Amino acid sequence: MSLDDAASKPHERMQAALADDLQAVNALIRDRMASRHAPRIPEVTAHLVEAGGKRVRPMLTLAAARLCGYEGEAHRMLAATVEFIHTATLLHDDVVDESQKRRGRPTANLLWDNKSSVLVGDYLFARSFQLMVETGNLRVLNILSNAAAVIAEGEVLQLTAATNLATTEDIYLQVIRGKTAALFEAACEVGGVIAGQPEPVVRALATYGDGLGIAFQMADDLLDWGGSDGVIGKNTGDDFRERKLTLPVIRAVARADAAERAFWVRTIEKGDQRDGDLQEAMALLRAHGTLEETRAEALAWSARAQGALAQVPAHLLRDMMHDLADYVVARLN
Amino acid sequence: MSLDDAASKPHERMQAALADDLQAVNALIRDRMASRHAPRIPEVTAHLVEAGGKRVRPMLTLAAARLCGYEGEAHRMLAATVEFIHTATLLHDDVVDESQKRRGRPTANLLWDNKSSVLVGDYLFARSFQLMVETGNLRVLNILSNAAAVIAEGEVLQLTAATNLATTEDIYLQVIRGKTAALFEAACEVGGVIAGQPEPVVRALATYGDGLGIAFQMADDLLDWGGSDGVIGKNTGDDFRERKLTLPVIRAVARADAAERAFWVRTIEKGDQRDGDLQEAMALLRAHGTLEETRAEALAWSARAQGALAQVPAHLLRDMMHDLADYVVARLN
Repeated sequence: MSLDDAASKPHERMQAALADDLQAVNALIRDRMASRHAPRIPEVTAHLVEAGGKRVRPMLTLAAARLCGYEGEAHRMLAATVEFIHTATLLHDDVVDESQKRRGRPTANLLWDNKSSVLVGDYLFARSFQLMVETGNLRVLNILSNAAAVIAEGEVLQLTAATNLATTEDIYLQVIRGKTAALFEAACEVGGVIAGQPEPVVRALATYGDGLGIAFQMADDLLDWGGSDGVIGKNTGDDFRERKLTLPVIRAVARADAAERAFWVRTIEKGDQRDGDLQEAMALLRAHGTLEETRAEALAWSARAQGALAQVPAHLLRDMMHDLADYVVARLN
Repeated sequence: MSLDDAASKPHERMQAALADDLQAVNALIRDRMASRHAPRIPEVTAHLVEAGGKRVRPMLTLAAARLCGYEGEAHRMLAATVEFIHTATLLHDDVVDESQKRRGRPTANLLWDNKSSVLVGDYLFARSFQLMVETGNLRVLNILSNAAAVIAEGEVLQLTAATNLATTEDIYLQVIRGKTAALFEAACEVGGVIAGQPEPVVRALATYGDGLGIAFQMADDLLDWGGSDGVIGKNTGDDFRERKLTLPVIRAVARADAAERAFWVRTIEKGDQRDGDLQEAMALLRAHGTLEETRAEALAWSARAQGALAQVPAHLLRDMMHDLADYVVARLN
């Protein structure tokens, strides 16, 4: 990768700015995933934690705390907590989705088995709670335990909303908050709380994380449909084949005439998909303009995140967070 | 069941003595397992929570707090927390063990699917953490988050220790602490902590719970071998067929001669089991006296639990806890 590329990626500039903190967080993660008698735990965890994830969530915690002038070390415990929660949900997601690949490598459920993924995920959840309890900060505990509940509820909701054409935009928002935005929000918020910031700053950090997470997930869902142009590529249409209802489809279903509705009932609700159905689905989304609308929604959530940053202290890290909100939707241009 | 039977069961006498508290705990559980948009959550949870479990763990928390003179209501939140943790582990256990029945009814993974069991289990874990955070007591949070980690580590250990003839008694103890005793211990300990008891009382309650849990699990493992007489009944031998190493086998393996060792390697390590092997295994356990020894160990842990009660305030509930420690091993006579 050229230096120009690296310079254009805000999360890589954040990595450089937070290098010392991140190194300490990585050491803490390695330390806490150890198990004297159950080597399966660090094996499975390391497979995922060291697979080259971008560490966006822990970086948000570190950045939020640092830009608020925090000088202690508890933000590192919180960053490791956030990464453990994230890793635990990935392990369980891969079991639930019966995934074969994650970050370009075989999933843990494939390399070991579903049992190990379920139980090691539980272990990481428990470790994450131990770590957050060590901070001794009840407000932080409240934020993170609430986030964990929103995440788990969103996952169940996604399971039951799949294939259900009655899924509303409200439910979609709750699902993507659970899937992505709740942990982004909590990661930013606890950074401000541990730094002892006044309420408006804490709220602004939470709003930034929520907006960033929703923009990120909407962009992801849109890219699964080939982006706002609806161009079919080799990674297009997974959600359609898995009969997941994301925003472009939810809006197209809401505006469907009788023939279109019959198409959605057959392909999504009944799961009877034939050659050419993906192209037909995409044509419907284009006809109703829902791909372009989803892009506009993602941009609006990104702008909302950036707007919230006006309430937090000026800092180089704040500028990087601003750029990060551009970056997650830049894929849509 | 006759009144005489009921009168002889200490957990039923505890249920009567703690009726108001238990009713409040049940209401709290119903309230917290609700989910506005994801009805799958209360469906799955209710199937398990309302299936007539004995509520032993939450009763221990209630009893410990009450016998220490506690007059508040936070012990109910803790009791519900403990029941949620227990229910979450049952949901995940049934996925891991591919169980078909629990408490005489089809398991949730059979009635719904593994996905629902994994995700609803996660939801209950998260809800349990929210509940304990609401008590605002950091020591309680510390105890319960540590217990959650011991439980999860024990589960992974059990997974990797199965079929492994090198499993030691130390590892067995860690597995059954994770499986049973850690939550019994924490359930008792937090009752004393929330009641503001001095350290020796809190330690004694923890020791009671640990001993009770170990005695209970050892008795369970022994009954899987038909009790100390080694009599084969219709529920005998599940652990052997599943190649689980429990105390009677671990000790018999340690004392095996070459021919006996070859038998254990074939049946447990390689899983090549034939007609008559269960009878042969049982004969080896009887020959080495390990069934009788396991019974003696279970009795000793029960006695240790009862001994610890000398340090806690005299109370009718204390007497019932004493009797409960007899009851869990009475099945072995």
